[in-house]
Amino acid sequence: DAPFALIAGPCQLESLDHARMLAERIAEAAEANRTKWIFKASYDKANRSSLSGKRGLGMDEGLRILSTIGKEFGVPVLTDVHSPDQCAPVAEVVDVLQIPAFLCRQTDLLLAAGETGKAINVKKGQFLAPWDMKNVADKLASTGNEKIMLCERGTSFGYNTLVSDFRALPEMAATGWPVVFDATHSVQQPGGQGTSTGGRREFVEPLARAALAVGCAAIFMETHEDPDNAPSDGPNTVPIEAMNHVLHGLRAIDDLTKGRTEALAHMFA
Amino acid sequence: DAPFALIAGPCQLESLDHARMLAERIAEAAEANRTKWIFKASYDKANRSSLSGKRGLGMDEGLRILSTIGKEFGVPVLTDVHSPDQCAPVAEVVDVLQIPAFLCRQTDLLLAAGETGKAINVKKGQFLAPWDMKNVADKLASTGNEKIMLCERGTSFGYNTLVSDFRALPEMAATGWPVVFDATHSVQQPGGQGTSTGGRREFVEPLARAALAVGCAAIFMETHEDPDNAPSDGPNTVPIEAMNHVLHGLRAIDDLTKGRTEALAHMFA
Amino acid sequence: DAPFALIAGPCQLESLDHARMLAERIAEAAEANRTKWIFKASYDKANRSSLSGKRGLGMDEGLRILSTIGKEFGVPVLTDVHSPDQCAPVAEVVDVLQIPAFLCRQTDLLLAAGETGKAINVKKGQFLAPWDMKNVADKLASTGNEKIMLCERGTSFGYNTLVSDFRALPEMAATGWPVVFDATHSVQQPGGQGTSTGGRREFVEPLARAALAVGCAAIFMETHEDPDNAPSDGPNTVPIEAMNHVLHGLRAIDDLTKGRTEALAHMFA
Amino acid sequence: DAPFALIAGPCQLESLDHARMLAERIAEAAEANRTKWIFKASYDKANRSSLSGKRGLGMDEGLRILSTIGKEFGVPVLTDVHSPDQCAPVAEVVDVLQIPAFLCRQTDLLLAAGETGKAINVKKGQFLAPWDMKNVADKLASTGNEKIMLCERGTSFGYNTLVSDFRALPEMAATGWPVVFDATHSVQQPGGQGTSTGGRREFVEPLARAALAVGCAAIFMETHEDPDNAPSDGPNTVPIEAMNHVLHGLRAIDDLTKGRTEALAHMFA
Repeated sequence: DAPFALIAGPCQLESLDHARMLAERIAEAAEANRTKWIFKASYDKANRSSLSGKRGLGMDEGLRILSTIGKEFGVPVLTDVHSPDQCAPVAEVVDVLQIPAFLCRQTDLLLAAGETGKAINVKKGQFLAPWDMKNVADKLASTGNEKIMLCERGTSFGYNTLVSDFRALPEMAATGWPVVFDATHSVQQPGGQGTSTGGRREFVEPLARAALAVGCAAIFMETHEDPDNAPSDGPNTVPIEAMNHVLHGLRAIDDLTKGRTEALAHMFA
Repeated sequence: DAPFALIAGPCQLESLDHARMLAERIAEAAEANRTKWIFKASYDKANRSSLSGKRGLGMDEGLRILSTIGKEFGVPVLTDVHSPDQCAPVAEVVDVLQIPAFLCRQTDLLLAAGETGKAINVKKGQFLAPWDMKNVADKLASTGNEKIMLCERGTSFGYNTLVSDFRALPEMAATGWPVVFDATHSVQQPGGQGTSTGGRREFVEPLARAALAVGCAAIFMETHEDPDNAPSDGPNTVPIEAMNHVLHGLRAIDDLTKGRTEALAHMFA
Repeated sequence: DAPFALIAGPCQLESLDHARMLAERIAEAAEANRTKWIFKASYDKANRSSLSGKRGLGMDEGLRILSTIGKEFGVPVLTDVHSPDQCAPVAEVVDVLQIPAFLCRQTDLLLAAGETGKAINVKKGQFLAPWDMKNVADKLASTGNEKIMLCERGTSFGYNTLVSDFRALPEMAATGWPVVFDATHSVQQPGGQGTSTGGRREFVEPLARAALAVGCAAIFMETHEDPDNAPSDGPNTVPIEAMNHVLHGLRAIDDLTKGRTEALAHMFA
Repeated sequence: DAPFALIAGPCQLESLDHARMLAERIAEAAEANRTKWIFKASYDKANRSSLSGKRGLGMDEGLRILSTIGKEFGVPVLTDVHSPDQCAPVAEVVDVLQIPAFLCRQTDLLLAAGETGKAINVKKGQFLAPWDMKNVADKLASTGNEKIMLCERGTSFGYNTLVSDFRALPEMAATGWPVVFDATHSVQQPGGQGTSTGGRREFVEPLARAALAVGCAAIFMETHEDPDNAPSDGPNTVPIEAMNHVLHGLRAIDDLTKGRTEALAHMFA
């Protein structure tokens, strides 16, 4: 029942300067709201809707930037991995390896990630029920790794839409692992723009509030100084100028939520 | 942006004494938490899963009890109507007519309810999108009635399950009408027990918290002193002994939420 | 395992002449393809998406037309009922009472319909699982009525879309009652046009074929001479000029399907 | 509008003798029903629900068996690939590379598969709309590969269930690429058995019939001599003893369907 942590950063790395600029502003907002944070960014977008989507800077350049940001700001850094062979080199630099939702059932990727000993944030596939994540966590835990986080990021709901089922948070928490709510990807409209994925960024903040009112260990939010021109996931990205304001509200809800659960549990048993 | 109101009571009326007992305990909890409340109960469950489900006391007896409760406690009372001819007699007694979700597209029922001039709480059909409720509200408003509430109570999600999409709250609020979150029926598992509807009452409180963190005008919660033996909707009913505790948490979240919205709106535009 | 029957006609009655014109053309197509048929039309569209949708001719005029068509063509006629009090007068004229999908759980309507002794075609609610229809049929059968048909017409799938789950046909047939596939409403996109319901009429024929390949007792298809200008459900209406061609294909599939089931059942047990 | 092809075989390879035994029986059924067929089997199940699920024989042994079967029976062979580096070695042996549904958006895998020049069968992700497959096919086609097949295998529908939307067949065919219906995986109930995936094999045959009544280029069906004891996907596997009987029915429907479409298209325009 520690206060929630923030996982934030740009959807994809653009340059060291750009990462540093965003990290500075996230750090300011986090400090102002007494919130621990993790810098998040991707070096490769391996599953864009269409071939014309920008993929990113690549692993070598990406890891250099993540390493620099981690050291300069004294924060943990997180990035996603897409194949078993990426896990070891990425783990040399980052603190948290993230398993993408589409890949959350790929056994070899989970085992390779688990074996690095680093923390793992595994996203729940859009095609999985919350309780199915126990099997996913068990694959990771079979490596002896005990730093596992389960991340809700929306479930398929008809075509080109996701829905956030907030019952998933307590369901996944029942596994015993901490639960992350990804407020950015939960508001995606996959394929909703023909050759790219749409979204409704005005829902990021309310859904993050909802997640903390229900209770979770961390909030994942992508951010950018100019969402409309971000190279990916712009439609569902929090403008960096709003970060302090958003965090302030989230902090207050989290403070209310933590610790309340015990008292009620027996009444609803 | 007034504080949220509570709509609470038993799923179905059992007797005047039973209604009075529950009303007393709701009143205590509401007063302790400075919350306006409306007494809710049904005199007829017209769409039980199967014929063996109990239907209730009937309209005459039911209205007598509702009238008594309203007077004794000085609170508005709410009940649901199932056909156009019920609207006028029910409106003589109750303050809020409720349109059941399955019936939310029945034009004659909506017009008859609207024409009573009483407040109307219309539940969003499990088969409707949030934006489809504009047409429903327009039918009501065509009668000149301006006391309309739109109520989220879950959307069909595969078979025998509902999901609460919290984007629905701001979507429906965009119509200009106040939005109610029905935390009881949202956690139903329709048909999930063969000849009756199941549910997960432990999710009522977290989902109500989520709704207030997103923002809404009222919370609807059914309650009973012995949910496991309630004649209907027991699996998703709040035990009356938990009401004060639940309300206390909801009140705190609502206090945080109201008024925040303006400041953020322009940042996400 | 009798050959499939056709339930066809306009979505809503426009005039006696119009009904007669369509009935003549359906009769021709049905005769050419050795298919028993039932004339279907509604006298009141009681649940239009919005108030501006046309409701129809009303019960008195509607029943006069249905009666005339039944006699002139020597075919059974079907129409839908929306409240318990409509059942007896409608049953004096028509051969099959139809329960709309939204109303399939309304106990009083089901009982009143059942008590007429007429055949009943009850549509599966968009919010129900196929196996939930057993409870619905049991309500009807409690009246002693043994002429019950269960009708698949699509299930809610995200927002503004229905999906036809063809597993529903054998699931509902397992109740012992004959199963109808409504190929018109299955391709609706509810609310998909803002204030009216959209649809994709080009899918009516392939889905009807699919239903008969799986196996069912009747196909329900609305038809019109000018679907683009029909007063309701035009987007998913079969042009009458295509009826003979469509029926010819359906007949051939049905001939293949009937009787095959026994042989396979034990292999998949 | 060629007659449909059959893609059949065991879910996972068990031994050369086992593969040969099944291939013999598939060949008999296919020949008896004048049906071209492709032998399908997996050498590695890379995304089992849980770690305890059997993974298979591995690539080297698997490719040896597939190569032998292809030569002995003179049929094309198909297997699935899970990472870019598997594509070239697998393509030396097999005729069709299959992209698993979870991986259908992984750009590098699609490009590596496309570049082999071999035919590609790409499964539609359970999280994608049919029209989203155009972007997937475009990734493949960007390599110059023109032997692309798009495969329907069910879409997420609530939790632990898939639904087959038969509108997806014409939707995907509108891309111009041939469409395969996977009747085995469409009836999966993912995670439906706790640590493994359930299914309802009695629906394989009716859904395959439905697919051919709507129209498609190939049917994919896994088969086994003892489904209840198959190492994977047993609950949705066709018993090999039923293959001839099933194929006979499918052949007849396909014969009716092919060639009908042109005549109707203009009537529904």
